[in-house]
Order: sequence, then structure tokens, then C-alpha cells
Amino acid sequence: MAYLDHIRACNAFDPARFRPFVVEGQTVGAVAHDLVPRLLAFENMFVDDGRSLAMVHFRDFEARSTAMEIVLKELADEGRIGGWRNEPFRVSTDFGAPPLLRMERAGAPLFGVTSYGVHVNGFVRTSKGIAMWVGRRSPTKPNYPNMLDNLCAGAIAFGMGVGETLIKEAHEEASIPSSIAARAVPVGAIRYCCEGDGGLRPDVLFVHDLELPADFVPKPSDGEIAEYMLWPIVDVARRVRDTFDFKFNCNLVVIDFLIRRGLIAADAPDYLALVEGLHRPRGIL
Amino acid sequence: MAYLDHIRACNAFDPARFRPFVVEGQTVGAVAHDLVPRLLAFENMFVDDGRSLAMVHFRDFEARSTAMEIVLKELADEGRIGGWRNEPFRVSTDFGAPPLLRMERAGAPLFGVTSYGVHVNGFVRTSKGIAMWVGRRSPTKPNYPNMLDNLCAGAIAFGMGVGETLIKEAHEEASIPSSIAARAVPVGAIRYCCEGDGGLRPDVLFVHDLELPADFVPKPSDGEIAEYMLWPIVDVARRVRDTFDFKFNCNLVVIDFLIRRGLIAADAPDYLALVEGLHRPRGIL
Repeated sequence: MAYLDHIRACNAFDPARFRPFVVEGQTVGAVAHDLVPRLLAFENMFVDDGRSLAMVHFRDFEARSTAMEIVLKELADEGRIGGWRNEPFRVSTDFGAPPLLRMERAGAPLFGVTSYGVHVNGFVRTSKGIAMWVGRRSPTKPNYPNMLDNLCAGAIAFGMGVGETLIKEAHEEASIPSSIAARAVPVGAIRYCCEGDGGLRPDVLFVHDLELPADFVPKPSDGEIAEYMLWPIVDVARRVRDTFDFKFNCNLVVIDFLIRRGLIAADAPDYLALVEGLHRPRGIL
Repeated sequence: MAYLDHIRACNAFDPARFRPFVVEGQTVGAVAHDLVPRLLAFENMFVDDGRSLAMVHFRDFEARSTAMEIVLKELADEGRIGGWRNEPFRVSTDFGAPPLLRMERAGAPLFGVTSYGVHVNGFVRTSKGIAMWVGRRSPTKPNYPNMLDNLCAGAIAFGMGVGETLIKEAHEEASIPSSIAARAVPVGAIRYCCEGDGGLRPDVLFVHDLELPADFVPKPSDGEIAEYMLWPIVDVARRVRDTFDFKFNCNLVVIDFLIRRGLIAADAPDYLALVEGLHRPRGIL
């Protein structure tokens, strides 16, 4: 296998299975055609014109958010949504755009709503080069148990900023004090879209590099991560290139790191496909 | 103005003015509808079906290359091509793909053939932070005289690799010995497409960062650059953000540097548009 297999895996979905999800005339996601009859069974919630599904009956942000909560709770009761998280997500046409509604994170994939997250590459400079902190996810996690992970990561909840989320996740997941987490450098963003969690995941990850002091050891804290390991970057690179041991999207975060640090040769055959594959064009379908 | 204005400027063209240029059944560029009648006047060179212009009559790479040379020389005689450079370009569907023909660089925009180049951010770490070497182009250059430029840059000629081109340009343009140029780190690539040089410029730039020793001073050598100046990175950033003083594509190279170094906040309103704007989707029209 090759690095490019992870780009493909994170961008694997069949657009023909979905139709746009529209709020206030603006496309903010995509729903599976299969789910449309169930959604239309909710009274006065959705309108479908055969090409897209829309929320149109609502006065404002709060009305839409309340309606969506009713819908999602029922869908969860029917077993269509796994793992209610009580994490409100912001639904809008773009990260900076005004929010059109608020919805529970676990329901976002059913509506193919873009999720914005923060991922952190934690690394140390050693006499032998760069070493990277790799987490192993808890064996009891419902999602991706035992898989390898970045130093810390998390979705950006409604009302939170990129930097705030990073400080919070670094503390909660890896016991990193804010004085150290604040040194994390924002280095770009990646975008992909794949099927998952019962729907579509059009995700944007704000990528950060955090150089840690040589004597600092991250400690699992909230139970997400079972253990942290410090690996030479070539071992991390090989593990990404040759296996699917990392959680699917963490592979892209590491590949981005490898590219930015010159650890993948510009003359490599897949170089442009890799660089550009980290930046899926906007627009889901 | 804003950083985003440079993304817009480098991606400004009207797709409706062009049709695909096809070789061996594969789209490798785009020609202006306006130019098609002139091209069809060449006997047995091109075939047009109203939607795309194709080269079909040729046996192989050499035959196509020879034919294209005849075409370009005549177009140059008619004043349709400025500044013949005697730099052969490789024409293919992708950087790594087998070449379909060879053509003179100056003629590439007429056929909207993708050009691959190398650009180098030269920087120094000082006690006050990063400083960047900025070149001022010669006042006698036919293209972009007096404009600001990266440390060095150049198009990748037929048969040359990314690394080779970098070593060559660093030496020719800035008198940088290969021992120092070899330290340049490939950090990604950017893609844009705009009208220019009498046609279309779908360009890919392989971006490199070269940290220079504090006591090293680049010296103009081949007359491309008139002088080099070492500026605090905040001054470079401001100049890019607020002016069009840099040569058009050098702005994107600096913006990419600023993003990767955390010098643009991830919470900035245009952040995603900037990051993603550096990676125009493939496919010209």
C-alpha cells in the first residue's frame, strides 16, 4: 500500500446515494436518498423536491435548532444515531459564516453536515531527528478502539474557536497544561469527505504542530487515549504508509506533517496527488 | 485589500473563452476559441470538433514535438508569442505522467499547458524572529520588471527534476552554492490558473523553504534579480497583504509560508479560503 491509499479511504463515498440538504436556500449538507422517506414522515419539518431536501418552515435559528433536536432524538430512539454526545454543532455554509442552526454532533453525519475539528501533531526534536507522540485509543472506546491517534484532537463545538478547542482537548485528552498547549502552531487545514457514522462525513481539520519539551510526557486523562508512545518520525511514517493502524483521518494529519517537513520527496511519483488530496474541493456532491 | 485578493488574482480567467486542448485523447491544456481558426490554418496539424482542439495526426512523441515546434515558430514570427526562451517544456496529463510532447516554454500559455516550477522561500532565524530574503527583479526584465520576488524560482525544464531545478536556479539566480541549496526543504505545492502571457497559465509551484546561515548573503547573478533585501517576516507579510508589489505568483508562495509557520491565525475569517485557495482543483476548464 501507499500514502495515497489513505487519501482515497478518506474520500470514498458514492455521491449518487445522496441529495443536498438545504437550509434557508443554502446547501449545508447531504442526506442519503434512503433516509428521505423517513425524514418526510416528520410533520412540517422537511420539504423534498426530488433533488434536494430542505428545511423551510422555520422562522429563525432557534426554531430550526429546536425542530432539529426533536428530529434527531426520534432518530436516535430508532437506533439510527449511535452515541449521543450532547455536543452541539454549528451548521453553516462555511466555518466563518453565520450559523443557520445548531444540532447534536452525533446527528451531523445523517445530514452530511461539515464538521470542523482540531488535530495536533505532538513532536520532539532529538539528536536523531524528529520524534512524534502517538496515542493508542482506548480499547473500550465505542469508535476506533485500539487504533493509533494524533497527540490530541477534537471537534469544534458550537460557540468555540479553533484555539480554545485546542487548549481544551490538549488538557482533557493528554493532560497538557495550557501554557504548553498555547505553543501549538496552526499550520493549515485539510478537508476530506467519506461515508461513516451512518451517513456522510465532510470534515475539515485545523492542523497544528506542537513541539514539546524533551522531558514532557503526555498523560491520558479523559479515557480517550490508553497510552502515549514516542516514535522516531520514520517509524510513524512507515506505519502510516504500510498499515491502516491509525484512525482513518489521523493518517492525513501525519501525511500533511511529513509533507511540510520535507519528509516526502517532491520528486516522488505521488507527491502532487498527496499534497492536493489533502484539500478536497469544497462542495459535497 | 487582503491576502485573498492574491488568490483571486492568480485564479482569474474566463473558462468560457477557452476549449480543451487534447493530445492522444487526453486533455493537456486549453486554447482560446479566438485562436482556433489560426491554428486550423496549419495543414494537418490540428482537428477541431467545436468542443475541443486536438493533435491527432502524429505517430509519436518526436513527431508531435517537431510539429509543435513548426507551429510555435510561425506563431512567434506573427508576434503571437513574446520572448522565445529556448526552454523545452514537457507536456503531459500530470507531472509524473509520460510526456506526450515537448514544446517551447514561451508557447505553453497559448495552449494552456500546465507549467511546473520551483519557488524557494529564503529565510533566516534572528533574535527577533524570522526574516525573509526578498528579491527585486531587474528593471530591464521584460516580464514583471522591478517587482518583488522570492529568493529564487524557475520553471522545470524537460528532463529535469524538482531538486535539480532548485540547485540550478539557486546558483544561477542568487549565487547560492549547491551545498547550501541542497538544504532547501520541499514543503508542498500550490496550484493556480490565470490568464497571462497571451493565453492561460495553469501553474504548479513546488514550494521550498531554505533556511540560510545568518552570515550568508544571496547575490544576484544572472540578471533576473537586481538586489536582495532581508526583511522581518511581518514586513514581508504586510507588503503581500496590502500591495501588489510582489510578482503575482510569489504572493501565494509567501502566503503558504505564513500559513505553515502559524503567522496567520486559524481563527482568521479567511483562513480556510486561503489554505484551500492555494490548491486550485485539477482540471483547467
